[in-house]
Amino acid sequence: MKKKIRIIVTGGTFDKEYNEIDGELFFKDSHIKHMLDLGRSRLDLNIRTLMMIDSCDMDDEDRYIIVKNCEKAAEEKIIITHGTDTMVETAKILANSIKDKTIILTGAMIPYTFGSSDGLFNMGSAIAFVQTLPAGIYIAMNGKYFKWDKVRKNKIIGEFVEID
Amino acid sequence: MKKKIRIIVTGGTFDKEYNEIDGELFFKDSHIKHMLDLGRSRLDLNIRTLMMIDSCDMDDEDRYIIVKNCEKAAEEKIIITHGTDTMVETAKILANSIKDKTIILTGAMIPYTFGSSDGLFNMGSAIAFVQTLPAGIYIAMNGKYFKWDKVRKNKIIGEFVEID
Amino acid sequence: MKKKIRIIVTGGTFDKEYNEIDGELFFKDSHIKHMLDLGRSRLDLNIRTLMMIDSCDMDDEDRYIIVKNCEKAAEEKIIITHGTDTMVETAKILANSIKDKTIILTGAMIPYTFGSSDGLFNMGSAIAFVQTLPAGIYIAMNGKYFKWDKVRKNKIIGEFVEID
Amino acid sequence: MKKKIRIIVTGGTFDKEYNEIDGELFFKDSHIKHMLDLGRSRLDLNIRTLMMIDSCDMDDEDRYIIVKNCEKAAEEKIIITHGTDTMVETAKILANSIKDKTIILTGAMIPYTFGSSDGLFNMGSAIAFVQTLPAGIYIAMNGKYFKWDKVRKNKIIGEFVEID
Repeated sequence: MKKKIRIIVTGGTFDKEYNEIDGELFFKDSHIKHMLDLGRSRLDLNIRTLMMIDSCDMDDEDRYIIVKNCEKAAEEKIIITHGTDTMVETAKILANSIKDKTIILTGAMIPYTFGSSDGLFNMGSAIAFVQTLPAGIYIAMNGKYFKWDKVRKNKIIGEFVEID
Repeated sequence: MKKKIRIIVTGGTFDKEYNEIDGELFFKDSHIKHMLDLGRSRLDLNIRTLMMIDSCDMDDEDRYIIVKNCEKAAEEKIIITHGTDTMVETAKILANSIKDKTIILTGAMIPYTFGSSDGLFNMGSAIAFVQTLPAGIYIAMNGKYFKWDKVRKNKIIGEFVEID
Repeated sequence: MKKKIRIIVTGGTFDKEYNEIDGELFFKDSHIKHMLDLGRSRLDLNIRTLMMIDSCDMDDEDRYIIVKNCEKAAEEKIIITHGTDTMVETAKILANSIKDKTIILTGAMIPYTFGSSDGLFNMGSAIAFVQTLPAGIYIAMNGKYFKWDKVRKNKIIGEFVEID
Repeated sequence: MKKKIRIIVTGGTFDKEYNEIDGELFFKDSHIKHMLDLGRSRLDLNIRTLMMIDSCDMDDEDRYIIVKNCEKAAEEKIIITHGTDTMVETAKILANSIKDKTIILTGAMIPYTFGSSDGLFNMGSAIAFVQTLPAGIYIAMNGKYFKWDKVRKNKIIGEFVEID
């Protein structure tokens, strides 16, 4: 519990906002700092925003940046906020390169600014999982955690499910 | 992650509400179910309300009920929602009796119904800690977890701090 | 203040919700009743949902239904919740047919379910305007009211402005 | 609708906050500005905080300050945010001195920061009533308005009711 944790922000539904002029969703600033304040987090955290994009728009270049940042990070415990649609893909690429750190990918089904978001709950879980799980790449959503190679997103029901 | 988790509700700031007639805080129903719905929790949970009281009003009899319920529970993973003022005291009594279960006591500094509550974040953490920590009695608040005998509440700053 | 007020629901941003599976906005049930409960409204109100549509999708047939319902209503004071994009158009058609009732069209820039909505404020204003303005067709948004023929929506800034 | 409106803040439940250390309610800063932003108010408003107190603690001196500020105000339309318990008393004293302005006293049953507040709805109504009612002293709560000498607060049900 003593070790510093890094939080890497990449965007995703988590950080989307509603544009009241055109009715579209868009990215502005990350709400992670605000969420941790609301949770009255007392941990030593190091937050870094790498990009603010929809995970459907994430390409190899973007994932390379994420992997490099995880490798270079002094912290052994890393949380990545990420869109849910390609979360498993990013987890897989991280698993190829990084063996000695605990990395938790998390996100939200509902934007944090929409009041009814699962974001704060998921962030609370991710903060806990990153402190207690052994080195490895995991996805943590809606109370559950999954090893990177044991999970897929069921897009019909909008839920992560375990696979063999 | 497969095992069922029990959640025992005892009240505390978590579940307090504002009485608009007299301006006092009071207890009605627990919001734990609503919080888990908001977090879109996909876990197999068994929620049981034992009492709805301020932890300052909790006496030996109440703690006896909590211990007995933890002992009898079929689940080996238990979360107890509890007022923060005497959370450490209840943890100590649980530690005397229960050795083979992972029990997480958690709560909130701000009532869940007040919008700005840390409750959803704390519940997310508790749900994660209970799945990953070894058997023992723990307090989980604001992103941190503490073994029952390594923590006290600093009432001046309203924060749990580690002790030796 | 004694006379009954009718509220006619037609949809609009007011009542949109976020679909967490596909990230699109959609209509389910109206939130008007919930908003009036939150405002602890003590008025004698008669709420009727006519349609749940985006005002860009509103056609002559829909507007005919709205006009007929306003004509037939026993109440002389009517609030219509409506999307902002074609609110002025509907107001104009109402003005052609109805001379002896006070009708207030109102809406929201942000869906009520998104937490940061102007909806509750606008509904509070509409409820007040409908009780105090003389017979006529008005648009009430963001604290202001406009006669139906003295207003247009500036879609660049997302704001209703007075015209001569 | 063209004339400037003054808003005078005196405290009341409207602006109470929850102290997470001792569980008591207290006053810090007014939320009126934030509420008007949320309502996307487009009116020309002049907000002035005179005091931040519970209306049960309001004495003759405090009411004298409120009356003097209303008299001196350049605006002919004034909203006063006020605790509900002695709102009628302040309205009566205002009515003795001020004849040519429209003054609306309003408040909330639930603090604005508690999420479930009626404050935004009441403020929306007050903003509308102040623009449309003739000169006089009024209380506006929960969708209704009352002349200062035709109302009392029923403290049992927490509601303002009309008297003859």
